[in-house]
Amino acid sequence: MCHADAMSANDSICVLGLGLIGGSLLRAAVTAGRAGFGYNRSGGTVAAARAAGYDADSDLSAVLTRAASENSLIVIATPVTALDSILDAVAHYAPGCALTDVISVKTVVNQAISAHGLSGRYVGGHPMAGTAESGWTATDPKLFTDAIWAVTTDDDADPAVWQMISALALDVGSMVVPIATDDHDRAVAAISHLPHLTAAVTAAVGGGEGALALRLAAGSFRDGTRVAGTPVPLQRAMLESNRPALLTVLSDTIDRLTRARDDLRDAGSVQVVTDDGHRARRRYETMATGEPDPIVGVEIGAPGWTGDLRHQAHLGRVWRG
Amino acid sequence: MCHADAMSANDSICVLGLGLIGGSLLRAAVTAGRAGFGYNRSGGTVAAARAAGYDADSDLSAVLTRAASENSLIVIATPVTALDSILDAVAHYAPGCALTDVISVKTVVNQAISAHGLSGRYVGGHPMAGTAESGWTATDPKLFTDAIWAVTTDDDADPAVWQMISALALDVGSMVVPIATDDHDRAVAAISHLPHLTAAVTAAVGGGEGALALRLAAGSFRDGTRVAGTPVPLQRAMLESNRPALLTVLSDTIDRLTRARDDLRDAGSVQVVTDDGHRARRRYETMATGEPDPIVGVEIGAPGWTGDLRHQAHLGRVWRG
Repeated sequence: MCHADAMSANDSICVLGLGLIGGSLLRAAVTAGRAGFGYNRSGGTVAAARAAGYDADSDLSAVLTRAASENSLIVIATPVTALDSILDAVAHYAPGCALTDVISVKTVVNQAISAHGLSGRYVGGHPMAGTAESGWTATDPKLFTDAIWAVTTDDDADPAVWQMISALALDVGSMVVPIATDDHDRAVAAISHLPHLTAAVTAAVGGGEGALALRLAAGSFRDGTRVAGTPVPLQRAMLESNRPALLTVLSDTIDRLTRARDDLRDAGSVQVVTDDGHRARRRYETMATGEPDPIVGVEIGAPGWTGDLRHQAHLGRVWRG
Repeated sequence: MCHADAMSANDSICVLGLGLIGGSLLRAAVTAGRAGFGYNRSGGTVAAARAAGYDADSDLSAVLTRAASENSLIVIATPVTALDSILDAVAHYAPGCALTDVISVKTVVNQAISAHGLSGRYVGGHPMAGTAESGWTATDPKLFTDAIWAVTTDDDADPAVWQMISALALDVGSMVVPIATDDHDRAVAAISHLPHLTAAVTAAVGGGEGALALRLAAGSFRDGTRVAGTPVPLQRAMLESNRPALLTVLSDTIDRLTRARDDLRDAGSVQVVTDDGHRARRRYETMATGEPDPIVGVEIGAPGWTGDLRHQAHLGRVWRG
């Protein structure tokens, strides 16, 4: 219902940045039948996208002028470090377009959007999908199938824009999790950014033991350190832009490991840490393998709609339109 | 060559403990054409093994008496917590059999073997294979294909027993890494036991954020916490029996995370930790994806053979017979 509403009139998207996420989104949206075109700074990426049959250009002002004339939904898929220059251009060439992003932190994006006077047409997004690979060559139109797509749902959200962003996520096969900006950043610090740091440290300690130790490495090391292989600039952009939330969960992690070390040293036991981890992992597996319950009974734009969505999302439910 | 030598006269194995590793080994060895039989304390496991066509019994004294009469190679595949009672029985019923184990720590096993007067016929083993699953139902005769099998190679190792153990590992498709007992325990603390603790803590911190956060969890959390799902008693038996080595790498881990926290708090940077992790992960990937160089020019039993094997293994090479 809302899906059809959001698709009415115009389903064109303009993707800024055609790396793994942005490129996959352009491919997925076009595959889903939408009109779509994209921008990338690198001529090589533009050439690769064009060779694959997509409408791409490295002229940002031309792309944004076209987005304004077609009233496209603009999706920012650049690294967070490029955000200010991108928003300068958006504010200049296409200030009236609905606007979202796929960047993995939301507070800093919100602040930048606000500083550029674009808050009224903006609702943030964050597809929880990705690999340790990057760039157009890694793009996959099925990247978002059955993925979770966080959509910021603060009290000042424009219902029409919220529906456009959610409809895009649903169109490419994802499920929407409505979430407040600060809740999002705290959650991804815990379940995405922290795992990058623990993977990095686990890899470094193992690597410090030399070739013999790495030769013995099997499943626990392979899986536990996988994301340490993500290009360092991508990791830094993501983690460093979520500093306050990441510091909180990182301190919690250090405290837990220190207690584990003390228990092992003083009592020879790792019971508490393995029990806590096992219980959390089982809870995650139950959620990840089951079909999520849908959010029900919320009319987008009705009084209290943002709070109602957030309340149900806190129970683990997802928006399916 | 050594393979044929070790197989001469007798290729029978007696597996004590038919869980994931022991059960898979019995299946793999029989699939490879060896004679094999096994013991498990649980009648249910014995019934399941028999139903699958394997020779299994829950009478330990009968199984060991048979091993002695057939001069079988005995493989201890019980949890480390059962080791003393198993070794009491081995020393009583089958003290002359060649003996190995598949337990993930070697110092405590060595000490127990020595305390039972069985050192002369013992060489330790540790296949680097496993999943978060356990028990006979999880067994897989291909579990050891292309896996690494650590074989203890201390200066007092009996060359004939060493060859028997290595031949078994090669027969089930693994590559042998010759390694000193203390080097093994330090290495697995770093590349196997520590990843269980970082997975547990990462899972617990994520789980502490509630259903909404777990709903957002994607690849980094899924892979980074996988082994936290291993049954807690198995994790405890493994980690707690490697206390000194695990304490060392755990302290290193806490130090690295603390430096990362300080860098992030004071300078807004995670460059050092992500650089270190990325470099180690890439090194691991290079080793894991390439074909390992073989150990060459060592005649098992010739003067200095154990040191020669260990030296080449430190370079990342493997023994292929």
